[in-house]
Amino acid sequence: MDSKHIKFFEKLLGEENAKFDKAHKIAYCYDATKKRFEPDGVLFPRCEQDVSNILKYCNENKIVIVPRGAGSGFTGGALAASGGVVLSFEKHMNKILEIDMQNMVAVVEPGLINMKLQKAVEEMGLFYPPDPASENYSTIGGNVSENAGGMRAAKYGITKDYVMALRAVLPNGDIIRAGKRTIKDVAGYNIAGILIASEGSLAVITQITLKLIAKPKFKKTAMGVFPSVNAAMNAVYKTMAAGVTPVAMEFLDNLSINAVENKFAKGLPRDAGAILISDVDGSNLDVLDADLDIIKNVFEQNGATEFRIAKDEKESADIWFARRNCSQAITCYGSLKLNEDITVPRSKLPELLERIKEISAKFKVTTPCFGHTGDGNVHTNVMVDRDDPDAVKRGHEAITEIFKVAVELGGTLSGEHGIGISKAPFMNLAFSDEEMNLFRTIKKAFDPNGILNPNKMGL
Amino acid sequence: MDSKHIKFFEKLLGEENAKFDKAHKIAYCYDATKKRFEPDGVLFPRCEQDVSNILKYCNENKIVIVPRGAGSGFTGGALAASGGVVLSFEKHMNKILEIDMQNMVAVVEPGLINMKLQKAVEEMGLFYPPDPASENYSTIGGNVSENAGGMRAAKYGITKDYVMALRAVLPNGDIIRAGKRTIKDVAGYNIAGILIASEGSLAVITQITLKLIAKPKFKKTAMGVFPSVNAAMNAVYKTMAAGVTPVAMEFLDNLSINAVENKFAKGLPRDAGAILISDVDGSNLDVLDADLDIIKNVFEQNGATEFRIAKDEKESADIWFARRNCSQAITCYGSLKLNEDITVPRSKLPELLERIKEISAKFKVTTPCFGHTGDGNVHTNVMVDRDDPDAVKRGHEAITEIFKVAVELGGTLSGEHGIGISKAPFMNLAFSDEEMNLFRTIKKAFDPNGILNPNKMGL
Repeated sequence: MDSKHIKFFEKLLGEENAKFDKAHKIAYCYDATKKRFEPDGVLFPRCEQDVSNILKYCNENKIVIVPRGAGSGFTGGALAASGGVVLSFEKHMNKILEIDMQNMVAVVEPGLINMKLQKAVEEMGLFYPPDPASENYSTIGGNVSENAGGMRAAKYGITKDYVMALRAVLPNGDIIRAGKRTIKDVAGYNIAGILIASEGSLAVITQITLKLIAKPKFKKTAMGVFPSVNAAMNAVYKTMAAGVTPVAMEFLDNLSINAVENKFAKGLPRDAGAILISDVDGSNLDVLDADLDIIKNVFEQNGATEFRIAKDEKESADIWFARRNCSQAITCYGSLKLNEDITVPRSKLPELLERIKEISAKFKVTTPCFGHTGDGNVHTNVMVDRDDPDAVKRGHEAITEIFKVAVELGGTLSGEHGIGISKAPFMNLAFSDEEMNLFRTIKKAFDPNGILNPNKMGL
Repeated sequence: MDSKHIKFFEKLLGEENAKFDKAHKIAYCYDATKKRFEPDGVLFPRCEQDVSNILKYCNENKIVIVPRGAGSGFTGGALAASGGVVLSFEKHMNKILEIDMQNMVAVVEPGLINMKLQKAVEEMGLFYPPDPASENYSTIGGNVSENAGGMRAAKYGITKDYVMALRAVLPNGDIIRAGKRTIKDVAGYNIAGILIASEGSLAVITQITLKLIAKPKFKKTAMGVFPSVNAAMNAVYKTMAAGVTPVAMEFLDNLSINAVENKFAKGLPRDAGAILISDVDGSNLDVLDADLDIIKNVFEQNGATEFRIAKDEKESADIWFARRNCSQAITCYGSLKLNEDITVPRSKLPELLERIKEISAKFKVTTPCFGHTGDGNVHTNVMVDRDDPDAVKRGHEAITEIFKVAVELGGTLSGEHGIGISKAPFMNLAFSDEEMNLFRTIKKAFDPNGILNPNKMGL
């Protein structure tokens, strides 16, 4: 990077907040994709005005900016894949600014860690439902930029359902507000709506106003054991159609069950085709019990051989342990995990899982599946040996076929991980030329010089 | 309109679907604002391809297009205020295409009347919550374009919370899809998010995929009588903060109560400062009763002198009659109603209502207020004598002050009616130059020739 630029940033932010040394470039070169791209520098803005000054300068000098939360993304959204300077909110802009009990709203900075918000509001009897698996380290800014989901989406929805308002800086340095601390607001275009899930490519979010709800008093966990994936998948959508909305409806297939058993020996049924884990919550125990009765009936009508309700928090935690540790356990099937998060309409889950099995057989790969079946979102993990180039090639071919099937079944490339660089090559499977043109037109309108996280999302 | 254009449309759609006679121009010149602008013609597309052909031709020939549902809007969104051709979905594109029980989704055309959808899905045990006051005649396309609210928004949210996917035609004729029949979809920009509430100014919506939920089995209605508006407003946000989410939490002030009594003699307490009407619903009667207990306590703690629970559907209908007929009854206060739908954070309701009272006194106007206080949305009606130019002037001055107060309290110009032409002059009260520039940039990106509903929303 030109020393003129370095001097500008050091003067603007102080040397402690403008880093161009090798150590910082390495520390901010990675994310959960394990791909590495060293940025030209790392900036730590102290406030919104810093962000505005940085963007204005970068826009005038055509310097690429890559906004970054915790770097926990699975698709490379926070990677400096086209060079440029990383803008990190980790050091300063990471606070809860306000929890407004009267209106049940939290106002936070983008670098705030999700779990810190959850804990703070729960202490006040409130509840922030979006809980991505990365909740202990991922940031709200990243969650909004990727529209993160989580375990509770089946009942409570996802990040976008909780964003009431944003403050953001446009590439030209203009500071804008979008949305209000009100349930309803139809004045002007829904700018917050398009900034959510835009992967930091349209504007830099500097403040987020989130809707909170009252914390449900009780939660219960149940587990059903099924002879086949197909039987379990049928039970999923039939439960919803029976009028119960579980908080979570998660599944593990046989490969995932056995991976967890191999590693942790939790007593899961090794010969089961699949297990379903379901939480129900609410403020009345009778209602929870009534919901569990309905779930039990639907599960048994769809072939469940066992139905167990956790009798206390420890049993609930044991059941959830299996689900939470799947991702780690399945590494027994291969040193390279090609993990995707395709999503289909719930009724298409049986066919999706059937087709994934066929594709795995065709390409001779092992594909353990688990995930958020309550909202049709399946974590599909093609496991291959990193050192076997032919296997890696077959793995990627399998992924392409799986994407095609997801789209064919009316589904999407990504339920919660985003597109970034990892799925960019597949955008043309899901979108027409007209749709891609519209995305490019919008990108150009917000960011005519292409300085904000360029070349992501296939744009 | 040039006869060349008339011939093109007649050939494309058939003469029965391309009308340029005086009778049609008059029939499509109005909406609920009572303003009148005769269009140059009225087109009735039969299908999405018709819409595409029309837009492509109009874009090439710079002919203005005004998409129109039922013409029931309060802000002129469907008025040909800058001339052009009205595009009506009333005749052909008005059907339910599919109700998908398995995924709890409805696919509909834009001209479908809201109530027809509600009835059709309720027969199947499902529920479509958004219920604008115009539900018996307004269309889903109009509801999406304005992001309509309704009586049930406090618990169930508004139109945007139910739109899963859209099909739409861009001004250049390109047909696009946005969103999927899935709970989660983070691939590409959230185009559906920005088309909602865009008042037909970015694209023409041709198909809408809506989320449905299970129909709640039971509903109960309660009414509280308060000595002052301030006491009632305090009770509203304290109820929510107590962990109850009523379906509706509606209010009538003293002027509204007396207007209803004058016209319908329903036995409402004429000396009350305000009444609150609240519905709770769910699938367990004990929970409903527990919710009503909490509401009763909060109401009484905030000075309610009476709390009544409707003992059957007839009593519930009687209570709701007062709320539903407010708008008509208050015409006793003046022949011209300047009605606005400002919205503030719930905790600001007491101050808002206090300030409206001061403004009414200052400008010597009568301002009955009622509305959806559960979501902070107050229908503010400045009533004046249409034939008294000074009173009309004072009325408009009062409205301007009321808008200023709403924005000052962190609220918005419109909770559900939109901006259209009526509120366009006030956009600069609510948005900065930078924000208005961004709106114009987005408008230009979608519609470079400015053919789609131009000059609305202050753009």
